[in-house]
This record gives sequence, C-alpha cells and structure tokens, in this order.
Amino acid sequence: MQERNLTLLTDLYELTMMYGYFKSGKTDEIAVFDVFFRRNNLITYSLFAGLEQAVDYVLNLKFGKEEIDYLRGLNLFGEDFLSYLANLKFSGDIYAVPEGTVVFPGEPILTVKAPVMEAQLIETALLNILNHQTLIASKAAKICDSAKGDTVMEFGLRRAQGPDAGIYGTRASIIGGCNSTSNVLAGKMFDVPVAGTHAHSWVMNFPSEYEAFKAYADVYPNAVILLVDTYDTLNSGIPNAIKVFDEMVKEGKRPVGIRIDSGDLAYLTKKARQMLDEAGYDYVKICASGDLDERLVQSLKLQGAKIDTWGIGTKLITSADMPSLGGVYKLAGIVENGKIVPKIKVSDNSAKITNPGFKTFYRIYDNATGKAEADLIALKDEEFDFSKPLTVYHPIERWKKTTFTDYTVRELPVCIVENGKLVADLPKVKDIAVYAKGEMESFWDEYKRIDQPHIYKVDLSDGLYELKTTMLEKIRKGEK
Amino acid sequence: MQERNLTLLTDLYELTMMYGYFKSGKTDEIAVFDVFFRRNNLITYSLFAGLEQAVDYVLNLKFGKEEIDYLRGLNLFGEDFLSYLANLKFSGDIYAVPEGTVVFPGEPILTVKAPVMEAQLIETALLNILNHQTLIASKAAKICDSAKGDTVMEFGLRRAQGPDAGIYGTRASIIGGCNSTSNVLAGKMFDVPVAGTHAHSWVMNFPSEYEAFKAYADVYPNAVILLVDTYDTLNSGIPNAIKVFDEMVKEGKRPVGIRIDSGDLAYLTKKARQMLDEAGYDYVKICASGDLDERLVQSLKLQGAKIDTWGIGTKLITSADMPSLGGVYKLAGIVENGKIVPKIKVSDNSAKITNPGFKTFYRIYDNATGKAEADLIALKDEEFDFSKPLTVYHPIERWKKTTFTDYTVRELPVCIVENGKLVADLPKVKDIAVYAKGEMESFWDEYKRIDQPHIYKVDLSDGLYELKTTMLEKIRKGEK
Repeated sequence: MQERNLTLLTDLYELTMMYGYFKSGKTDEIAVFDVFFRRNNLITYSLFAGLEQAVDYVLNLKFGKEEIDYLRGLNLFGEDFLSYLANLKFSGDIYAVPEGTVVFPGEPILTVKAPVMEAQLIETALLNILNHQTLIASKAAKICDSAKGDTVMEFGLRRAQGPDAGIYGTRASIIGGCNSTSNVLAGKMFDVPVAGTHAHSWVMNFPSEYEAFKAYADVYPNAVILLVDTYDTLNSGIPNAIKVFDEMVKEGKRPVGIRIDSGDLAYLTKKARQMLDEAGYDYVKICASGDLDERLVQSLKLQGAKIDTWGIGTKLITSADMPSLGGVYKLAGIVENGKIVPKIKVSDNSAKITNPGFKTFYRIYDNATGKAEADLIALKDEEFDFSKPLTVYHPIERWKKTTFTDYTVRELPVCIVENGKLVADLPKVKDIAVYAKGEMESFWDEYKRIDQPHIYKVDLSDGLYELKTTMLEKIRKGEK
Repeated sequence: MQERNLTLLTDLYELTMMYGYFKSGKTDEIAVFDVFFRRNNLITYSLFAGLEQAVDYVLNLKFGKEEIDYLRGLNLFGEDFLSYLANLKFSGDIYAVPEGTVVFPGEPILTVKAPVMEAQLIETALLNILNHQTLIASKAAKICDSAKGDTVMEFGLRRAQGPDAGIYGTRASIIGGCNSTSNVLAGKMFDVPVAGTHAHSWVMNFPSEYEAFKAYADVYPNAVILLVDTYDTLNSGIPNAIKVFDEMVKEGKRPVGIRIDSGDLAYLTKKARQMLDEAGYDYVKICASGDLDERLVQSLKLQGAKIDTWGIGTKLITSADMPSLGGVYKLAGIVENGKIVPKIKVSDNSAKITNPGFKTFYRIYDNATGKAEADLIALKDEEFDFSKPLTVYHPIERWKKTTFTDYTVRELPVCIVENGKLVADLPKVKDIAVYAKGEMESFWDEYKRIDQPHIYKVDLSDGLYELKTTMLEKIRKGEK
C-alpha cells in the first residue's frame, strides 16, 4: 500500500512564479487560463478524457509538512510564502466539456478562472493528465472506428509508460471505445470488463500443447480461449485446440475461441476459420493480437482476415505514432477592477496566436441529419439569437463562410468547479463511453477517416474576431 | 493523499493461469523466467533502469480484502485460490544487473526463480516498470551523449503519459545523464536537483516585458534566468533582459542566464550570444528549449548554435521516436526433481528463439583500454577459466569469433532478492547516475553513435549454444 500526495506534481517554475506573484502583490489577482490542443498532422479530432483525475488533483491540493519542508530546503522561498502554501486550497472556477466529447484544435476545452497563483500552480498537472488521457482516448477511438463494431480488447499494460500510463491509459481506452481490458487494477478501479486468455509459458509448462489446452479447458470450461501459436499454429495449435473442443462438446460444454498472436494474421486467420468451420466450430471466435493499430486493423479487414476480436496493446497504450498531445495552457485574461482584461500571446506562426478573453464554444447540429456541422468559439458574454439563421466564418480567411438555417446549438463547456467546490456530476467510465460513442456517431465519417480527413470547421464569433484583430493591430502599431 | 495498492497491476491472464496452475497441482513447482529486450532499429544498447520500483512491487504484493472481493466478483476463481492469494507473499529469488548498466538485446537482465504462480503474477508489472524506465534512461543517455557534457534539464512533465510517466520518467532521465528536472515531486522523491525559469504567462501578466523581468529579478536576484521570446526575442526580449541585467549589476548582483523557447535556435542563440557579449555578459548562459531531441542537439551543435544549457521535454519523456521498449518475460526452465529442466520458445524468426536454461552473463573488458569488448551469455553453472585466453563466438554465425588474451571479466547479474528477502543494496538515484556515466564511458563511441552504430558483440557460451542446438534438433526431429 503506497500513499501518495501529488500536490508537487508541478514544474518548479510554477512555484517560482507563484512566489514572484506573491512578492509582487498579486496574491488576489484573478486570471483566466485556457487549455487547448494545437493542430498536427496526426490528429484532427480528439476525444476529451481525464477530467475526473484533473479535477481530483485540483480539489485535493495539500501542501503538508513534508512538502513544505522540502520546498524550504530549496532555499528559494520565504517563510511567508510557505505559510500561504500550507493553507492553500483551490478557490476558483473550472469550466470544461464533458469527458468523451469530440473536440478540435484551438477550442478552449477547459478554462480556469482563479487567483493567478492557484491557476499557475495547477497548470502542469492539468496538462499532464488531460494530454495523456485525451491522447489515448483519441487513439482508441481511431482504432475502434477501424474495427467497425468488432470487439476490441486493450492489452497494453506491459508496454505502457509506467503504472499510471497503464491504469489511466486503460480508462481512456474504454472511453475511446474498447470493450474490455487485460488490466485487472484498472478493471477494479473503473468498473470496466476485464478479459484475457493465457500465455505461451502456460503451454510450455506442460509436457505437450494438447495437455496444456486440456488443463486450461478443465479449469475454465465456460470461457476457454486457447492460444494456438506457441509451436506451429496450423499444424499443431489449431488441431490440438479442435481435439480439446471435441472433448469439451462431448461433456456438454461450449468452447469460446482461439487466439493467434504471431505470424501472418491474414493468412492464418483465414486458414483457422476454415479448419474450425470444417470441424463444426463456426461459432468459435478468432482473436488476433500482435502489434496492431488502426492501419493494420483496416488492412487486415481489407484482406478478408477472419478476426472477430482484436487484442490491441503497445500501439494503443503508447499512441505509438504520436506519443504526446500538444495541449497547452495559455493566459486569456486578467481581472482588473472587476472586469476581465483580455490577453493575447503573439507568435510568428499565426496558427499559434492565442484567442484572447473569457471564452466558450458552441457546436452547431444540422436538424435534418442530427450531424455536427461546425463549432463556434465565442466570448462568454457574447449574445446570439440562435432562432435566426447563423453565419460562421473561417478564423483567419474570413471570406470563407457558411450559413445555417435549420440547426440546433449546444454550448459544450459547462461549469465543473465553482469557488473551489465541485458543482457537476462526474459520470462513471461506462457512462462516459456510451456518451463518447454517441459523440463519434454525430460526426460524418469524412472527418474520422485515417488519411486526408476532411477538416471540421472551427470558427470564431464576430465578437472574438474583432477583439483579436483589434489587439493584434495595437501590437502592430507598437501600442502594446 | 491517495493510497494505492498496485498488487492487481497485472494482466488478467496471469491470474487465470495462476488459478490453472493451482488447480493442476503445480502450486509448488519452481520456474525460471528471464526478462530481456529484443533488438530493434532504434535501440542498439539500453541503460537498465527501474529495478528499485520493480523490486518494491514484488516485495509489497498484498491481496487485501478489497482485492479479494473484486476477484471473487469476477466469478472466475474458487475460494481455495482466493484464500491462497490472501496469504501470498513473494518467496523466490531475483537476479538482476545493477540499475544504470548498459545492456544489449537478448541478455537476461533480470531473472526470476520462484514458484511458477508467483513468477507468473509479477510478469506484467515487472515488464511495465522495467520497459518504461529503461526506455527513458536510454533516450536520456542518447540525448546527453549528443550534448557532449553540456547541462541537460528534463522538462517533460506536462507531456508525459500520466503522473507516473512524469515521476519515474524523471528518475530514469537523471539515471541517463540529465543534470536536473523541472518536476518538483520527482525532485523530492529521488533527491535530485530541480530547475526552472518562468513562463510566457509571467511576462504577459505585467504591463511590459521590462517590468516582468524586473519583478522576477527582484524576487530571484541570485538565480535569474529570463525567458526572452514572449514578444520578439532580438528586438524586445534580449534588450529588456540586458537592461535588467545592467540594473542588477549596479546593485552588485550577478545575472545567470536567458532562455529561448521558440524560433530558429541556431540563428537566435548566435545573435543572443553576440548581444550579451557586447553588453559585457559573456558569463551569462543561454538555455534553449522547444521540441529538442538528440538529433536536434547534434544538428544545433554542428551549426555552431551558442547553447550552454538544454531543456528537453516531450521527446525525452515519451521517447517520441520509439515510445515503448519490447522487453519480454520468457520461461527458461522448470525445476523437476531438484534439477532445472531448460525450456525453449521456438519461432519462425530465429532471432526470436529464446535462450533456454538458468543463465547469467559476463562482460569482457580489454585491460589495455579498460573498454568493454564483448558480452557472453552462459549457463549459470557453466565453469570458465578466465585466466586463460577466451574465445567467444557469434550466437548464430558460429564461424565468427574473437579471442581475448589480456582481459578482465565481470559477471553482470547479481542476486537482489533471495527467498523473498532483499539481499542487495538499492543505491540512490544520484549514485546510479554516477555509475551509469562510468558505464557509458566504458563503451567506444562507435557503439553509441546515432546512425549506423557498430553492433556490440553478445555471444553465447559453448554450453548454452550446445544446449540450445540440441533442443532445437529434438524439435526438428519431432521429439519435443
């Protein structure tokens, strides 16, 4: 049993900046920060995940004696500041989209409005947790989308980047559409189905493959899935499995499946299906595993591989082709005299210029199809008349526009924490997964395809666009 | 404060196999399993890390009431087995190389000799922990090798795959050669140096960049490193930094450095160096960060970039170009009548055939240079006369051989756990890092270069080679 206090799961500069704000008389200053993802070639949409753990971190901040003593030993901070930390609790507000929501680059998916010192402290852990879980949920969504309704099992724990990457990566995988996991601890923590078969070492532990299968079938008469590739899949594994299945059937039991973990899965599963069918086992499922990802799943399906169940490990649990999500946390405004003064971060790269001000965003659904058509990032206090036709404009190339007439609008971020108190229900993982499935279905396939996906419209409201261009114009004139 | 029990950090099939062994009367059977890495294109050597956490997991296994109740609820296990689990403690032996040792594919870097049920249970967590930390330590070693003695700071927490990936990734980064980390919790847990500067948001929080720098310098007069790229590095950031440095010097203080986090680092750091030198600050350090890895470090050095200190984040903490290490855990033998009966796992791919039997391995050093020249995997009970010339042979192409005359041999794995008790000292992270530095220095640069590295010799002893070929011959003849 380990006890752990994650309060110090932060970059040192968050604490040195806090102390700087403390010494600069900014203890009571309120700031607004947004979390958003930057676009990249491999991810055009993301499935937001990790909110429960992020909120848990924020609401359980506690600088205990051990933490304070450690910080004192760094010789960077004054005793006045250490006393402040010892009493620190998060007192601000957090707005976020529900977990399992499909989100796009640039959207303020989580907004913190809090005393600047508190807001700064939580940056690193928020990004760590949200970047990780959103990354894996998005990868799982891609893989499950390729599997077209087949059962997908998450098998990655042994290759995950440490225990949490396994545990919370499993959580995110289930949110992204996986049906079960091999990870027992995650199964227990999140009440999600656990699954598994046996290893090659089981087979090697018995005098023969047949005896190993027989022993396994004796222990699990109702759930036997036999791993058939320890010695020779077609010449030994499948014949031995069929022999054991025959004996099970004689005893009135019903075999469940076989698993193939190596070799040419297209060829082997087609042969396996034929051998099983000829032996009368057309109902026995074939599970395939071994370095699979969404592209291999798609390729195997195109080749007519006979796979009912997919075991996906390493490439899911690490998001192997893109192992990090570039989520950032940017200052959007500071409260002065009770009003939010917007802030903007400029950059040579216009896609990297931040959207200033206290914001929210809306999703526009076509009433005829129920499908999502565009998102609209706007200032939180901006007023719209959604009973009238709505025209949205490209965030930079403003001459590109679309008008909606028969539409429904949903504001995506909701208030999760208010004055340091949880004010929203955080749903169970199973319920998030159901919601996420609906989210995925609300988007046309064109946005979700692996190669050259259609880019979903994420536009800026007139109010936000005007604010941004006015601020940039002032900077251009050197007035900043 | 969270309490966590990681006992269930295992794949379901480990537990179902355990129950299978339990029901098959194999409760007392002793098995030998090896952990080793498979070769791949991106990693020719690894820096072994994670042993302390792996051993901690094994020695703290505890199926408490909560865990037993959960397992009972799965309806897979009998009460007799659940009672066995409730009393389970690890009772076996573990041999491993010290953390920070340079190891090569195929070498048995950790060997478990234990009752098969216990040995099977711990597979998943061992692989999870060792794969992760060895991966990141190896990536850090590559990056630090490219930095050629410059200071390297680990900055990756916000992009790590969850809290543990940040915490233990930092631990591994320090073992691999990083000088410090931004991760405060890891700094506290492992007693390693923490470092940091400030963020763009600090600059944006003040009316001007100058005022932001001034305020920071007032708070940290002895440690001020200013981030100069919030608005315009050359036209605003560096001139403002120099202005603040001038004021500091007048007050008798000594500025430390600047940091550049964006833009063309080769161009900007050369210009920055020139501007600082002309202003009399040739002693002020330049720190660069922003999506760096070993290739970019090498490229920037080739371009003559003026960088004293490197901040390395995402690509280190995720090992971005290879985010998992294919460490495996394979059955090598089973004790029958007090003797170890070797086991072998065959494969179509001859590189994937396992080495059977209870093994160890040796490193051969040339006495003239002190450099490592070859490793020799052997059976543990095989006897050698290392006072005589030693000839080693290629593991498959046996006609390739090398003879050593003036050499020293070191056996790398040592006994860490005996009969379930820790019998070795587990050194502190700082000491492991010193040892790892010596390990890296004991290899010629040719083995460590990024592209087309020379492949280090890892050979099989005569005894092991004969055992392996005899077993394969029996399989070929269908005698298995």
